[in-house]
Amino acid sequence: MFLRDLVQQFGGEAIGELAAPLTGVGTLERAGAAQIAFLANPKYRRALDATAAGAVIVGMRERDATDKPRIVTANPYAYYARVAQLFSPPKAHAPGSHPSAVIAASATVSPQATVSAHCVIGERVQIAAGAVIGPGCVIGDDASIGADSVLVARVVVYHGCKVGARGLLHAGVVIGADGFGFAQDNGQWVKIPQTGCVRIGDDCEIGANTTIDCGAIEDTVIGHGVKIDNQVQVGHNCSIGDHSIVSGCTGIAGSTHIGSRVMIGGAVSITGHLSICDDAVLSANAFVTKSVTAPGMYSAGFPLMPHAEWLKNAAQIRHLDALADTVKELKKQQSAGTSGQSTHPGESS
Amino acid sequence: MFLRDLVQQFGGEAIGELAAPLTGVGTLERAGAAQIAFLANPKYRRALDATAAGAVIVGMRERDATDKPRIVTANPYAYYARVAQLFSPPKAHAPGSHPSAVIAASATVSPQATVSAHCVIGERVQIAAGAVIGPGCVIGDDASIGADSVLVARVVVYHGCKVGARGLLHAGVVIGADGFGFAQDNGQWVKIPQTGCVRIGDDCEIGANTTIDCGAIEDTVIGHGVKIDNQVQVGHNCSIGDHSIVSGCTGIAGSTHIGSRVMIGGAVSITGHLSICDDAVLSANAFVTKSVTAPGMYSAGFPLMPHAEWLKNAAQIRHLDALADTVKELKKQQSAGTSGQSTHPGESS
Amino acid sequence: MFLRDLVQQFGGEAIGELAAPLTGVGTLERAGAAQIAFLANPKYRRALDATAAGAVIVGMRERDATDKPRIVTANPYAYYARVAQLFSPPKAHAPGSHPSAVIAASATVSPQATVSAHCVIGERVQIAAGAVIGPGCVIGDDASIGADSVLVARVVVYHGCKVGARGLLHAGVVIGADGFGFAQDNGQWVKIPQTGCVRIGDDCEIGANTTIDCGAIEDTVIGHGVKIDNQVQVGHNCSIGDHSIVSGCTGIAGSTHIGSRVMIGGAVSITGHLSICDDAVLSANAFVTKSVTAPGMYSAGFPLMPHAEWLKNAAQIRHLDALADTVKELKKQQSAGTSGQSTHPGESS
Repeated sequence: MFLRDLVQQFGGEAIGELAAPLTGVGTLERAGAAQIAFLANPKYRRALDATAAGAVIVGMRERDATDKPRIVTANPYAYYARVAQLFSPPKAHAPGSHPSAVIAASATVSPQATVSAHCVIGERVQIAAGAVIGPGCVIGDDASIGADSVLVARVVVYHGCKVGARGLLHAGVVIGADGFGFAQDNGQWVKIPQTGCVRIGDDCEIGANTTIDCGAIEDTVIGHGVKIDNQVQVGHNCSIGDHSIVSGCTGIAGSTHIGSRVMIGGAVSITGHLSICDDAVLSANAFVTKSVTAPGMYSAGFPLMPHAEWLKNAAQIRHLDALADTVKELKKQQSAGTSGQSTHPGESS
Repeated sequence: MFLRDLVQQFGGEAIGELAAPLTGVGTLERAGAAQIAFLANPKYRRALDATAAGAVIVGMRERDATDKPRIVTANPYAYYARVAQLFSPPKAHAPGSHPSAVIAASATVSPQATVSAHCVIGERVQIAAGAVIGPGCVIGDDASIGADSVLVARVVVYHGCKVGARGLLHAGVVIGADGFGFAQDNGQWVKIPQTGCVRIGDDCEIGANTTIDCGAIEDTVIGHGVKIDNQVQVGHNCSIGDHSIVSGCTGIAGSTHIGSRVMIGGAVSITGHLSICDDAVLSANAFVTKSVTAPGMYSAGFPLMPHAEWLKNAAQIRHLDALADTVKELKKQQSAGTSGQSTHPGESS
Repeated sequence: MFLRDLVQQFGGEAIGELAAPLTGVGTLERAGAAQIAFLANPKYRRALDATAAGAVIVGMRERDATDKPRIVTANPYAYYARVAQLFSPPKAHAPGSHPSAVIAASATVSPQATVSAHCVIGERVQIAAGAVIGPGCVIGDDASIGADSVLVARVVVYHGCKVGARGLLHAGVVIGADGFGFAQDNGQWVKIPQTGCVRIGDDCEIGANTTIDCGAIEDTVIGHGVKIDNQVQVGHNCSIGDHSIVSGCTGIAGSTHIGSRVMIGGAVSITGHLSICDDAVLSANAFVTKSVTAPGMYSAGFPLMPHAEWLKNAAQIRHLDALADTVKELKKQQSAGTSGQSTHPGESS
């Protein structure tokens, strides 16, 4: 694999060429002579000068910033991603079902699919060609897994849920557990049956131990190309639009609708029944209680400080509204006082 | 199933009647002629006018707000829940143990219980009649599962823990892992053995991937009718009183006692060794560092704002205590100044 | 087991002696005559007076605070931990592999290790002597589990990851799932292959349903003696130094480096690419967006208040920067006004 091969496959301009073929990718700091690195952020340009990488992927503006053999492209990070994929193809799985897997007679498992050890596959489940159901997964009745999707291990898909094509669901994911719906009745809780499903589009990745609940009556819907990190919770009847991305530890309460290309940071809390518009960006730790109607970046979060300062400042927050009133009053008095003073000279004259 | 059948079973007043029997429930927006919908919140009354539902469940005040066949009841949402349950009975499971389940000889499994594929049931475990242990569950030695409880899939119950009757534990739940207890000793950590158990009452629901730790010496105790959402963490030696409800992503640190009928929103953090009194309501995202001693709703959380505004406002929070001091000083000076001014005319006269 | 036996094994001074041997440990409040309790915090000294414990472990300053048979030591809590361990030895597991376990022919499993029912052990995996792989665990190709480490149940270790000696991984732990890395390209996401591993040192404990992602190119590294609670998320390429401790529900974003002996409270959010220095303490619920460079305790978090007060105070936070400006202006005007007043008498004279 030489630069000319990469350019042929992925485009871009090759300047210079390697003497020996590449064996992989690396960071500017650690790559060696047989590896290709990348510079996406001009901030790290100093690392470009110092790198021992055999070749680099750079943006248009860094075209001449190095003498190394290089590929020039509009998006060096995405280019790097594709090159890295080339050197790290997904593990091949032999098709077929492990003898320890328990598969309902009415399930339809493609002969090109893999069902691993200790899986349990329910009635009428459909598993498409190229799908890999890793060890210990449980697929409920009437669920379906699309072509080339990989469920790594111990994934649970409840009955009736649908996972699209080319998905990647990491260990411990739970798709379609009951939404959290109860009616209060004389101080006790009556369960609202959760009869909807979860529908997940194509090309989605879902992180370890993430949970996506089924809808109460209608479905919870995840679009195409959505990327969800570990330990995210998505409540019943939510929808997440195409190509949105949700970082770890985020919780989205029921019936909230996330638009397309939305970026959600880690540990964000979003309350229920909201709409987050297309292209909104919610920073890490944001607490969202109202719909977001215009694209752009939104933030929240109490800033970190030494503990003693936090104690004092946090205490004042309890009186912030009173403080604002006092300031308003002071301002009113002062402008009255100031005008009083301004007439003073006249009085005293 | 006609309105008269529902009223006979659940009470309430039927006004009008359906021509053909109901086939299910639906939302006001999407229900068809063979479905019954409900109006619990007067805010949505407009949807009542527009609904295509064959019948509706309404409150006393909406008794005459529609001409549709209807059931009038004090609590339309709870009524709806019961009707929905009628149309969505829990899946029946054939009793018996799957041949792939590994069951200790000393375990007592009711012949009316179901133990699914790839379960592992420890020594002296007791599984009561009607209980369903779903695929891939692991039940530790001396644990017990009450009558008609359902462990959906891949639930782990550590040794000695007890789950009451009619419980519903979703996939990935872990009951009874070690509490987080270590003694510091010369910069290292010495483990405190966690020898208590978890005791869960009757009629509890526990969401996917939720974890409830065992007690250090005494037990962690969950009362009756408690509903816990997904990805909740309950620390060692906590107790949660009857009919309390805990939304997703909430964490409760060790030795905190939650009263009865408490409602806890999503992503709440409660520190250890606190008491939350009966009937308290903690809003989503609340950070609780002191005990709550009076019922009512409590909130916290930094409000969301455009990123640039957050940067400016968050920076000021670091100086809030100083700001409050300045305002106090200004007020003192101004009242001194004002009294000065008020005597001024006299002086100048 | 008498006090003299404990002192011989763990040091400290025994004062007085029991008539009959100890049978276990307990709290000051609940221990009986055959149990030993401890007093670590002088705040609870009253409980010492009232205790029915047969013996107590106390610090130097409480040497003479009781007439009970007692052990005096510099660190009563750590002493108690060691005594408690003596009375609660870890469950013994018979070595050998359960017939239902699926073990690759190329795996090396010590004859002194235990592989439980329904485990799946990949190619070239190494499992050392004394290790216990509990029911339903999945160990990926080329991973290794150190001597005497216990994976309780349903733990997943991805390919190539290494767990050191004497570790304790609780149910539902996922080690080595893909880090969350995508390059944006024309509104879509291109996956960055995550080719690093996770390396975990010796004597680590990892709580239920915690997830630690593999590195993108280099490894994610957890040091020795690190204790991590339940439902913690550690992003790709993070490192955590020796003897640090991380409480439940905390999330650490990618490429953040945590020093040694750092203490992190529950539900802390730490953004990526930061450094937290040795011996830093981050309080529960802290939101960390900048590196911490000096030891000490740091806090954040909006204080809880009655809902109506929160509404008012939170609303003011949106205007805090403007409020600070107003106060600055008032101060400037007042000091001008005050100096104006002080010259006034002269003017009017």
